[in-house]
Amino acid sequence: MNVIDTNKPKHGVARGPLRTARQHVLALSLGEPAGIGPDIVLVAWLRRNEDQIPPFLAIGDPGCLARRAAALGLDVPLAVATPDDAIATFAHALPVLPAGPEATAAPGRPDASSAAAARIAIETAADLVQSGRVGAIVTNPIAKSVLYEAGFRFPGHTEFLAHLAGEPPLRPVMLLWSEELAVVPATIHVPLAEVPRLLTRDLLIETGRIVAHDYKERFGIPRPRLVVCGLNPHAGEDGTIGREDEEVVRPAVEALRAEGIDARGPLPADTLFHAAARTTYDVAIGAYHDQVLAPIKALAFERAVNVTLGLPFVRTSPDHGTAFDIAGTGRADPRSLIAALKLARRLADAGR
Amino acid sequence: MNVIDTNKPKHGVARGPLRTARQHVLALSLGEPAGIGPDIVLVAWLRRNEDQIPPFLAIGDPGCLARRAAALGLDVPLAVATPDDAIATFAHALPVLPAGPEATAAPGRPDASSAAAARIAIETAADLVQSGRVGAIVTNPIAKSVLYEAGFRFPGHTEFLAHLAGEPPLRPVMLLWSEELAVVPATIHVPLAEVPRLLTRDLLIETGRIVAHDYKERFGIPRPRLVVCGLNPHAGEDGTIGREDEEVVRPAVEALRAEGIDARGPLPADTLFHAAARTTYDVAIGAYHDQVLAPIKALAFERAVNVTLGLPFVRTSPDHGTAFDIAGTGRADPRSLIAALKLARRLADAGR
Repeated sequence: MNVIDTNKPKHGVARGPLRTARQHVLALSLGEPAGIGPDIVLVAWLRRNEDQIPPFLAIGDPGCLARRAAALGLDVPLAVATPDDAIATFAHALPVLPAGPEATAAPGRPDASSAAAARIAIETAADLVQSGRVGAIVTNPIAKSVLYEAGFRFPGHTEFLAHLAGEPPLRPVMLLWSEELAVVPATIHVPLAEVPRLLTRDLLIETGRIVAHDYKERFGIPRPRLVVCGLNPHAGEDGTIGREDEEVVRPAVEALRAEGIDARGPLPADTLFHAAARTTYDVAIGAYHDQVLAPIKALAFERAVNVTLGLPFVRTSPDHGTAFDIAGTGRADPRSLIAALKLARRLADAGR
Repeated sequence: MNVIDTNKPKHGVARGPLRTARQHVLALSLGEPAGIGPDIVLVAWLRRNEDQIPPFLAIGDPGCLARRAAALGLDVPLAVATPDDAIATFAHALPVLPAGPEATAAPGRPDASSAAAARIAIETAADLVQSGRVGAIVTNPIAKSVLYEAGFRFPGHTEFLAHLAGEPPLRPVMLLWSEELAVVPATIHVPLAEVPRLLTRDLLIETGRIVAHDYKERFGIPRPRLVVCGLNPHAGEDGTIGREDEEVVRPAVEALRAEGIDARGPLPADTLFHAAARTTYDVAIGAYHDQVLAPIKALAFERAVNVTLGLPFVRTSPDHGTAFDIAGTGRADPRSLIAALKLARRLADAGR
C-alpha cells in the first residue's frame, strides 16, 4: 500500500523514490561530541524495545560513541551501517554511519575536532533526507560558540538546515511540540524591547501560513486550528492596553482567515494554556519567546520536541542544549530525544 | 495560646485587640451584584462542610443573595449577622452583614445601584478588617466599567483597598498564588512596549522587599526564596539578547541579597516553571504580565488565588472577573473563591 501511495501524483508530478518515507530509517546526527548527544543516543538505543523507539541511524564518529559507551559502562554494540541496512541492524546493534573527523573531545570539553564533527553530521543527515534515503532527520544539540569559533556563519542549527535545504534560504519556523501543547513563537531570540517592532502583520501572516501548511502536510491534520496570542496583557483589552493587538495582530489573523486558514486571535495568552482551553486548538502562535515557551515547559518539560517547520523535509530535535556539565556522567535525560524520534517517525509517516 | 501570642510586643508596641485574627470570621464582599459573586458565595456556603470552607460573613445586600438563591433554586438560609456572631451562624445559615443600597440588578445586567453596592461592600469589609473585627477580607469581582461610570477613580479593587488602608496610599503588590506555583508580575496591565522602560531597579527592589516581607509576616515563611525572571529570552544570555537583565535585573537582585533577602536571578523564565524547578523557590517575580500569569494559569487554572501584598491586612480574591454572561445560570465555578477563602484563613492564622 505504501508503495502505491507514494506514486500517486502530487501537484501533478509523480513522486521520486519508489520507497516511501515510511520504510526509511531516521537519521540522527550526534551533535556536539563533547555534549550529552552521545549519552542520550546510547540510552535511547538501549530502551528501543521498552519505549518502542523507531529505528534510527546515528550519523557521526563511531569511535566517539564507543568511548562514551565505555565511559558510561553501557553495553551497546555498534555496527557501521548505511540507510539501507540500518533498520535490520537496529534490532541487535546501534547502527552508525561514519561522518566527519574522529571526534576526540572528552565529555564536557569540546576540542578542535568538535565543530567539524558536528557540522558534517548535520550536512550528511540533510543530504540523506533530501535524497530520500532516510525518512526524516533528528538532530542532537550543538554548541553554537564552538561552531562560531570555527567560522560557522549561521545563527543556529535551524538556519543552517534552511540553508542546506535550498537557495534562497527558506524561512524556517520553530514549533515546540508536546502531547499537551504545541506552540510557535513568532519572534524568538530577540530582546523583548524589539518585539513590538518585529511583530509585523507580514511576519504573523507568513508564520501562520507555514504553520497551517505543515500541520496539514506533515501532521496530516486537514484543517488545523491556529490561535494567535495577543502581544499585550489581555490581548490589549480592545486597544486600551497597547494598540498593536488591534492594528497588527487582528488584521494578520483576518488575513489568514481570508485565505481559508482556521485562525483565531488575538487571544489573551494568560488564559490560553489551561487544559480546557487547549482542547480548542492545535497550535498556538505566540508573539515572543517566553509567552509560549514558559507555558509549554511548565506543562511538558523534558517531553517537548523542537520541530522545524517550513523545510522540505521533517526535522525534529530534543528541546535542550549540549549540557556540557553532565555529559559523560550518565545523568542526561533521554526523554526529549526519545520524544523527538517518535514524533519524527509520526511526521514521516503522516506526511504526503 | 493565641491570646497570649497577640499581645507579644511587635516592633516594641503591644498589639491591639485582645482576640487574635484566628478567632475572627472572614469578611467576604459580594462584589458586583449582577456578576457571579452572589452565585459562588451561595455555592461556597453549601459546600462548607464537604470542602471544609472557613466561616465567612458576606457583606452586601441580603436581598440580592436571596433573589439569586431563588433564581438558582438553591436552598440557602440567610441570616443577618455581625462579625461577632457570624461563626456561630455559619453552621446553619449564610451570615450576611447588610451594607450598601438594595442591589436591584438582574444577573448579567448591572443597574444604577450596582456601583454603590459594590463600593460600599468593599469599604465595609476594609473597615472591619482594619478595626480588627474580622480576620481577613476576601473580595468578589467588581466591574470596573460600571464603577467608572459612577465616578470611581481607582484603577481597580487593589488600588482602592490601598487607598482605604492609608494615606499616602501604600503600594500594593499582586501575588497570584496556587498550591503549585506563586507569582508576582512586577509590571501588570501595561503595553508590552512599555515594560522595558517601566521595569526599573527601584521597582524590582521595592517589589522584592514587599514580597519577602509579606511571605515572612503573612505566610509565616522565615526566609522565603525569591526568584526573579529575566526580561529577555534566556535572561538575556549574558547580555547578548538585550542589556536590561545585566543592567537592571541583576543589580536589583544583588541589592535584595545585600539586604539579606534570599533572591536569585535574572533566571530564564521558560525553564523556571516545571515541577523540579518549582521546588527551588517560594515565589517567582516576573518582569511582566504574561511571563508569569500564563504559566500559573496553565498549571492551576480555577485554583489560583489573587492576594494583595503590601497592605496592612490580609486580602485575597478569586482570580476571575464578574462573568456577566453566566451570572445566575448556575454555571459559575466556585473553586477559585473557595481557594481564596482557604488561603485568607491560612494567612490570617499564620500572620503575626
